[in-house]
Order: sequence, then structure tokens, then C-alpha cells
Amino acid sequence: MSSHPDLPLHIPAEGVYAALHWDANGLIPVVAVQYDTGEALMPAYANRAALAKTLHSGWATYWSRSRGEIWTKGATSGNRQRVVAVRCDCDGDALLYLVDSIGPACHTGRRSCFSWLITPDGGVVCDRPLETPPDRNAANATRSDK
Amino acid sequence: MSSHPDLPLHIPAEGVYAALHWDANGLIPVVAVQYDTGEALMPAYANRAALAKTLHSGWATYWSRSRGEIWTKGATSGNRQRVVAVRCDCDGDALLYLVDSIGPACHTGRRSCFSWLITPDGGVVCDRPLETPPDRNAANATRSDK
Repeated sequence: MSSHPDLPLHIPAEGVYAALHWDANGLIPVVAVQYDTGEALMPAYANRAALAKTLHSGWATYWSRSRGEIWTKGATSGNRQRVVAVRCDCDGDALLYLVDSIGPACHTGRRSCFSWLITPDGGVVCDRPLETPPDRNAANATRSDK
Repeated sequence: MSSHPDLPLHIPAEGVYAALHWDANGLIPVVAVQYDTGEALMPAYANRAALAKTLHSGWATYWSRSRGEIWTKGATSGNRQRVVAVRCDCDGDALLYLVDSIGPACHTGRRSCFSWLITPDGGVVCDRPLETPPDRNAANATRSDK
């Protein structure tokens, strides 16, 4: 999947920052998954500070590429994600946040950002309804959901 | 999460290739998840051809960044992933392959590539044992697993 060597079985405290492979922008892909149901909630990115804040605070924190800032999910909407575990893959290319998501993870008001199903012919259909009204930051979603 | 506008609720057949946001290398991140248990199995990347092959064949297919080629998971090891559904996120930045994984997803012989747990102090420990011996391509894993 990449040319990175596999991670060793044990890495000492604080060693994760050196062990992970950050891209040219200092970011690593993250996927957030509901810890008890396995529902894939959202893709995101983290930088070192976002990962550190996640580990220290217990609340899922990301790097917002659009806003260019650290972003603790739900800090404004209330739809926080309590972190149950943080994992990385075998060669340190990606993070998995296992979370307990309070409310919708998607800014459109859906439980999951992965609500768009790709059909075998290459069409796409959003097959999951809104759970709550989109938040006030979801201008595009509000338009397309009408 | 990005500055891309949200996807519309319906995209016509074959429209997915235009709707998704491919990076400068023509790739999009993928996460493969076991469809019935929700276990996050592996992160990967796809290009247009890999997604098309996945949709048309029903077998999870990726772009191997290390080998620079299309890669149908398990083509050599036998550990294929039958695709139950392909999803994308709300702004077309990532794919979710919901699969039925035949055997281990990880080249180290573990069920999941996400077997490395990041502890709160920033250490990392591999907390899941091998399920089967590593395949012959897993030289690094073989060394570190001894």
C-alpha cells in the first residue's frame, strides 16, 4: 500500500509522532468509526497537534483543511466524538479514531458522511435521510438538500 | 473538512468519476470496512481505473503506490475482498469499501491493518496476534513479528 516499512510491535511513549508518516503538509488521513456499531462516520485529517489534543483530551480533534486550523469536532455544534481508542495501520500511513459520536457526524445532519452510495453503473445516490437539520455552517448542504 | 462543495443528492450514471475529488496524483483515499461487523480493515488509495474495476468486478481493487499499479486485493494471496457496497463521503473526498474479507486484510497476517493501538502517552503497541503466517511479500513484518 506504500513503500514504508512496517511498524515495530512496540513503540515507546511519545514515539508515535516519529513513527507516523505525515504528508508534505504535515497531515495524515483519519477515519472516524463508531466504536460499538462499526459505522464509518467520516474521513478527515490530523496533524501532530490534533493527534496530541485527541490523545490528551479524549475528544476527537482534526485539522480542518478548509479553515486551516485545529478543529475539535462538535466544539460549536455540540456533536462531539468521545474517543474510545486511537489506532494506526501497519505502516503508519493512516489513523483510525474509534469514537462515541454524540449526534450526527456529518455537517449535513446525517449520521455518517458516507451516506452517498455509488451504484455499479457509476451513479451516486444519497440513501440516508437527514437526522437533524443541517447546522448553520452547512450552507451548501442546505441548498442541495432542498 | 475541505473546501469542496457538498455532493448533490443524485448524480447520474457514470457521473461518479467527475464528482469525486482526485488528488494531484489522480488518487482518492479509501478505507475498507468489513460489511457486517464494522471492523476497519485497511486504508488504501484508488484511481479511476481501480474504482471502475471494483464497481464492475465486485472485488475490491486499489492503486498500489509502492508498486505503481492497479491491485486487486488478494489476487496473489487469495485474501480477496468481495465488495458489498461502495460509498463516498459528503463532499467526494474519500471512498468507503464495505467488503466481505476472505482471510486477513493485513499483509502481516492480521485481520486488520489497524492493529496498532496508540496509547494516551503516545506509545504504540500491536495488540492483535497474527491469524496466519505473513505472506511472502511481508519481509519486514516477518522480521518484526519474530
